[in-house]
Amino acid sequence: MTDYFAGFDIGGTKTLALVVSDHGEIVHERRELRPHGPEETVDQLCSLVSEVQADAGVAVSAVGIGIAGAISRSGSVQFSPNIPELVDFPLRDLLAGCVDLPTIVDNDATAATWAEHQLGAGRGVDDLLYVALGTGIGTGFVLDGRIYRGAHGFAGESGHIVIDRHGGTHISGVRGPWEMYASGSGLGALAREWAVAGRLPAVMAAAGSADAIRGEHVSGALANDDPDAHALLDVFASDVAVGMTNLMYVLDPARIVLGGGLVDIGEPLRARVQHWVDKTTLGGAFRPHVPVVLAEMGSRSAALGAAMLARALVS
Amino acid sequence: MTDYFAGFDIGGTKTLALVVSDHGEIVHERRELRPHGPEETVDQLCSLVSEVQADAGVAVSAVGIGIAGAISRSGSVQFSPNIPELVDFPLRDLLAGCVDLPTIVDNDATAATWAEHQLGAGRGVDDLLYVALGTGIGTGFVLDGRIYRGAHGFAGESGHIVIDRHGGTHISGVRGPWEMYASGSGLGALAREWAVAGRLPAVMAAAGSADAIRGEHVSGALANDDPDAHALLDVFASDVAVGMTNLMYVLDPARIVLGGGLVDIGEPLRARVQHWVDKTTLGGAFRPHVPVVLAEMGSRSAALGAAMLARALVS
Repeated sequence: MTDYFAGFDIGGTKTLALVVSDHGEIVHERRELRPHGPEETVDQLCSLVSEVQADAGVAVSAVGIGIAGAISRSGSVQFSPNIPELVDFPLRDLLAGCVDLPTIVDNDATAATWAEHQLGAGRGVDDLLYVALGTGIGTGFVLDGRIYRGAHGFAGESGHIVIDRHGGTHISGVRGPWEMYASGSGLGALAREWAVAGRLPAVMAAAGSADAIRGEHVSGALANDDPDAHALLDVFASDVAVGMTNLMYVLDPARIVLGGGLVDIGEPLRARVQHWVDKTTLGGAFRPHVPVVLAEMGSRSAALGAAMLARALVS
Repeated sequence: MTDYFAGFDIGGTKTLALVVSDHGEIVHERRELRPHGPEETVDQLCSLVSEVQADAGVAVSAVGIGIAGAISRSGSVQFSPNIPELVDFPLRDLLAGCVDLPTIVDNDATAATWAEHQLGAGRGVDDLLYVALGTGIGTGFVLDGRIYRGAHGFAGESGHIVIDRHGGTHISGVRGPWEMYASGSGLGALAREWAVAGRLPAVMAAAGSADAIRGEHVSGALANDDPDAHALLDVFASDVAVGMTNLMYVLDPARIVLGGGLVDIGEPLRARVQHWVDKTTLGGAFRPHVPVVLAEMGSRSAALGAAMLARALVS
């Protein structure tokens, strides 16, 4: 008999709900605007758990929720950039009031890591580093075959690691953190800086002005083989590699999965990140090569991973 | 019945051999000059395993060896700064030829981490970060209650993490790695720089010249409550904290144990590191406090931990 699990990803603008079989097959999918505030969050998730089961025509055995931010091991949302109104909010315990099923609330990058490990680009790899490049940087780890959450649930906040202690000040208040350079926001800032300096004429022409430059203008120029855009990507990839190499020294993964929105750039990004990681890692003579591969689960990875983490609650 | 285990630490100048009970009690201890070259390494260890058992009057059930460097999960020394002649050297397999006992070869910081977890300042802590400040920086991790080695055995090479990508070039060839600033060598370099600038008169007077300044001159000035030495220590502690905070974001430990030779400075160092970690870590409002504590196992920690890792082979 097939078991089913519900997986949710509460994102910055939308909630994605999935019903997933124990083989990882998505049998039902639904999107809603993301909730605002504590009560609406609980109400939306409670309603969706009922509705997606009815719509899919199956009963689920457990529920998993992925959400950006610092999620405690007991499933409390300590802080989430996506729903800033949730502070020290015991989401899992409150859901237990309406969802009479085993329920887990986890960080979205942790969930996405598990999806890639169970179903995607990290299958069969016991020591896996997942790096999601989006608005910021999210990371997750499978260590010795298990998802690693840390003592309090906050492991993998690697976007904050300082790589340039005398660098500029990030919106977080810290000088020179990795995600200031190596996220989608970092790529946008770098592109605007280059455009102002006259180094990205094709991108500038497509966007109209430096301030209007977005990721898609850079992606478009890359697709058109604009050499300036490729030079920009190379510098950006070296920024990605600085933090990635730091994480390699700490964790010694066997594989690195590159995920998040910037993965839409695809192979050009992956290849340059691999180049810089290989070039800058010390001890290349004795160190087995660590492949950097593109994530395979796409934008559903966090919801899918949340469903797979729910599966682990009951199996 | 008490079981016994042999633990070795092959250091930069000496090999320390211990016979340890399964409760962690040291029943015999011996020091030899460290071996040179592959054959001498194997010969010395084989002889010592026999001799320390005879001298202690007990038979050991397993043998553990700690050595600085990149040690593969199969116990090969890929590279060791202490015995540079050992490259891709299958030490564990070669020892099996003469030591007819379960044998493990591990990184010395990994072994010291396990000693602190089993017997010292990290007892009862499932997610532990150990940071040894010596000539360089060594780190080790207990994660979810288990020692973590990484996919290849190279986890915890955290001294290499880049914290100042536009900083000076380290002897490793990398710009701005943590251990260039936050190791004993880093403290010495900082002290000499301050001395030349006239900022450490008491230390300078004790050492005779800036070039002659060693750690003990700084320690001596700290013990005499020299305000300049305390100002130096504060800057150094902030350097330690940058990398330590990076590791906290990645691993989310419940406790941090500060080990290595610089621990001789003691509480003044611990207190300033704790200060800077607390001050600079983001999310202090929701994050449980992470205590930084001094290691308790002293200079025998790697040999003791190697014996305890050997114990785990047979229990």
